[in-house]
Amino acid sequence: MRIFKEIKTIQNWCKEQKLQGKSIGLVPTMGYLHDGHLSLVREAKKHCDIVVVSIFVNPIQFGAGEDFEVYPRDFERDTGLLEEEKVDAVFAPSNNEMYNPDSSTFVEVTGEITGKLCGASRPGHFRGVTTVCTKLFNICLPDKAFFGQKDAQQVMVLEKMVRELNFPLDIIRVPIVREADGLAMSSRNVYLDPEARQQALILNEALSEAEEAIKNGERDTARLKNKLREIIASSPLAEIDYAEIYDAYDLADVEKADRKIIMALAVRFGKTRLIDNRLVEV
Amino acid sequence: MRIFKEIKTIQNWCKEQKLQGKSIGLVPTMGYLHDGHLSLVREAKKHCDIVVVSIFVNPIQFGAGEDFEVYPRDFERDTGLLEEEKVDAVFAPSNNEMYNPDSSTFVEVTGEITGKLCGASRPGHFRGVTTVCTKLFNICLPDKAFFGQKDAQQVMVLEKMVRELNFPLDIIRVPIVREADGLAMSSRNVYLDPEARQQALILNEALSEAEEAIKNGERDTARLKNKLREIIASSPLAEIDYAEIYDAYDLADVEKADRKIIMALAVRFGKTRLIDNRLVEV
Repeated sequence: MRIFKEIKTIQNWCKEQKLQGKSIGLVPTMGYLHDGHLSLVREAKKHCDIVVVSIFVNPIQFGAGEDFEVYPRDFERDTGLLEEEKVDAVFAPSNNEMYNPDSSTFVEVTGEITGKLCGASRPGHFRGVTTVCTKLFNICLPDKAFFGQKDAQQVMVLEKMVRELNFPLDIIRVPIVREADGLAMSSRNVYLDPEARQQALILNEALSEAEEAIKNGERDTARLKNKLREIIASSPLAEIDYAEIYDAYDLADVEKADRKIIMALAVRFGKTRLIDNRLVEV
Repeated sequence: MRIFKEIKTIQNWCKEQKLQGKSIGLVPTMGYLHDGHLSLVREAKKHCDIVVVSIFVNPIQFGAGEDFEVYPRDFERDTGLLEEEKVDAVFAPSNNEMYNPDSSTFVEVTGEITGKLCGASRPGHFRGVTTVCTKLFNICLPDKAFFGQKDAQQVMVLEKMVRELNFPLDIIRVPIVREADGLAMSSRNVYLDPEARQQALILNEALSEAEEAIKNGERDTARLKNKLREIIASSPLAEIDYAEIYDAYDLADVEKADRKIIMALAVRFGKTRLIDNRLVEV
């Protein structure tokens, strides 16, 4: 497994792979890998000749007061896991390698799709995501890039960006991977103390109950959102950031769950903010 | 010469060319070609195996009240000229092909470099330019993209964008091509009536006199700017939009012409706005 730290070196290596007719799969990560990431890697291995995993905690997608400094990092463990998965290359640049002090170029998806949910709670977050993904796409030249459905809004925003800027690649969505008890895997789960860890199960439970209600005929999204909020509120440590239901394609408002919808949650347990979601098509 | 109207078709064709190991040169234009454009094409032919010329009057780089609707167009003449130059492919998409009604993704270079000169006179202009060039780069996959020094700020902004977003390509600057009497070639020159056409020579004359003054030892940019403005003001039809001197790399303010500087002019003759510039290194 090759480990690259410099943009020019991996970009030239990827160009060579493409000249040899090899397809490239890119799995962008912020490291501290868990089975959710590894499911992306395995999917990439299925689709592509060469798999590149990037490990970069992207400063410009964190807001002031967010957890950039304390975001968990373990490069040795990460590369060990990726080696076991027979990944071809890891791209792990420094902050200075990715951003000059005078960098001022940004890629931004504007409108409802970035104005709601995490876009409302975390101003500038998606601009940071779309900018760094543009850079990673230009550096690693993937034919396919793999993203988890866990970050549902992120993958929607990136699909729109790829479509509207005509990137020569496909975005592949990979389903959420959950712990045995239902908690969606996240590098941020390590922040949770045992009590919060237990109470955090309420996210998946609320989504499952609301999904069940839809399957039983409930279509009114206002009532469904109330249901989500009531269930989450039953956990004393849970502080709801949002619990919303939108059109699954563009996050348009929906009064009735009569098309493909997304139920999306962000909930704080102390300083730890967790997200989860469920796509439902009736 | 292939003529493509659809994004997917030319993108696939360009992918095939690259798989065959061919280098691609892209010359982005808004059509109504003159010798300035053809000098870009000839430079591209020298550097690259395959030359693609795009012809697209990009609506999002025109402001309200600007000349988008009346911008001169002559597709048949353009393709005739490009055929003579043995261009390999023309990409001439419709507006609908390039932009969906709900397109809302933009690439933006922020800061001084887009805040001054044409960026100040034409708000949103460079966002339109960087967005369409990102699309053209992603569609045509050039190894090198060719831009005229005539649009000096544009090429500076694009160089910064390519550097900061890590596009896998080089921007090649090609010198300004002038009419025999010194007027910088521009598709907009057709707007000029004979009197304005004659008076428009003052742009090149002012630049030449200021350059001469620098060569004779003048370093004070305030005095040099006054000189430019006085010379231009001697043409009764000329209305100065800007006449400025900045650092040639990043448009930083400069008090002394003691490094590589750019003298940049935008002057209106009636409804017609012309630009010209001169790089000077002492």
